Amino acid sequence: MSTQNSPLIRKLGAYVSLSDPELAVLEKFHQHRRTFVDKNDLVYEGQTDPSAYILAKGWVCSYKLLRGGGRQIVDFQIPGDFLGLRSVLFRTADHSIEPIKTVEASEVKIKDIFGAFETCPRLATAILWAASADEAIVVERLVSLGRRNATERVAHLLLELGARLKLVGLAKEGSYECPLSQYLLADALGLSAIHINRVLRQLREEGLLTFRDGIVTFDNLEKLVELAGFDTAYLDYEGPMLK
Amino acid sequence: MSTQNSPLIRKLGAYVSLSDPELAVLEKFHQHRRTFVDKNDLVYEGQTDPSAYILAKGWVCSYKLLRGGGRQIVDFQIPGDFLGLRSVLFRTADHSIEPIKTVEASEVKIKDIFGAFETCPRLATAILWAASADEAIVVERLVSLGRRNATERVAHLLLELGARLKLVGLAKEGSYECPLSQYLLADALGLSAIHINRVLRQLREEGLLTFRDGIVTFDNLEKLVELAGFDTAYLDYEGPMLK
Repeated sequence: MSTQNSPLIRKLGAYVSLSDPELAVLEKFHQHRRTFVDKNDLVYEGQTDPSAYILAKGWVCSYKLLRGGGRQIVDFQIPGDFLGLRSVLFRTADHSIEPIKTVEASEVKIKDIFGAFETCPRLATAILWAASADEAIVVERLVSLGRRNATERVAHLLLELGARLKLVGLAKEGSYECPLSQYLLADALGLSAIHINRVLRQLREEGLLTFRDGIVTFDNLEKLVELAGFDTAYLDYEGPMLK
Repeated sequence: MSTQNSPLIRKLGAYVSLSDPELAVLEKFHQHRRTFVDKNDLVYEGQTDPSAYILAKGWVCSYKLLRGGGRQIVDFQIPGDFLGLRSVLFRTADHSIEPIKTVEASEVKIKDIFGAFETCPRLATAILWAASADEAIVVERLVSLGRRNATERVAHLLLELGARLKLVGLAKEGSYECPLSQYLLADALGLSAIHINRVLRQLREEGLLTFRDGIVTFDNLEKLVELAGFDTAYLDYEGPMLK
């Protein structure tokens, strides 16, 4: 696959019109591609000098374990997302990253990222933007756990994933493939799997959304956006800001 | 006040050993200093082309309003923190920022930040690190709301603020000035003000922490850290990573 069409380039290209030298630098980021199987953490909390990765294929979840054994899923990552960039900057991983089914990811050394900033400072802007978008997603999840009811939480997360997948060319109009189990949704949204099941049934019966056989379909996008209070301002772009 | 000792420089300097040209660029960031009084948002959600600020004096809170009228405080910012950097990158503010009492902040234009990346790429690394630390703080708040009980949430937040203030030279050993009301703590932690009051009394009676007359004092730091499951990995530094 040409990396010209890689999800990372599609994503950063939505923010910055990428020049040939910038594309060449991003291409170099994809040299060390590796495969990871599910249940085997790419990065584990507390790991020192962890690597960063760019997810190329498949989904992962990032999570934190608590002393009592509970876990909080912080976010799901999709192709084009950086994995563990924050942990690399901190020198110690502050969260774990687990593949959901088999994934492919390119390992990126921190010195290559810093080197890219030296030669292509606009890439620094693009990566800062991508990190900010990641933060905005966590903020939305915080608002969900703090202030949204179960139905709103599920609707918001599934809308958000749709918008993110669309940005990297992995969603069809109104539907997308989604490998998340009800257990994973539960661990991300502070609900039980049974509660998730009930909410999904309710959303389907009300003609808003269907999640079946690994496919999420928006049956009534407008009403769903209204229900979730979903605002795409943090994900949607009318075109590159930096030409 | 010399900006050489500004909280921003102390903070970024904890991550990157700053050279004279880098210090000069950061100094320029402080040219447009303004005063804001409480209850008057510096930035409001939905605002287009908002400014970014560096907080110089006082505390602010960043928050999101929900349709039902509820609000979720996302975080509190202290001197040295960027305000609204994410919103500038998105061209539309995705949250509001409100002063807690009167604050002073320097307005920074996005073109000055991008310009700094061109001339001093290491500053891009430092600012990416600062943005990542902000994200780590939101992640911790997410874990608090998802998995920590009321006592752990309060203890974790007050320990975290202590560590952040220490980094910019605004905490004494084991205590710091804190302008937060119980209402603000409640809006950040998904609790009621009455609950916050009860938790603070309990922490005091158990000899762990006292929050009185605007001063937080850690009476038994070790036990408090243990109780909150507080790990400073995302805030503590043994010295600059980039010399």
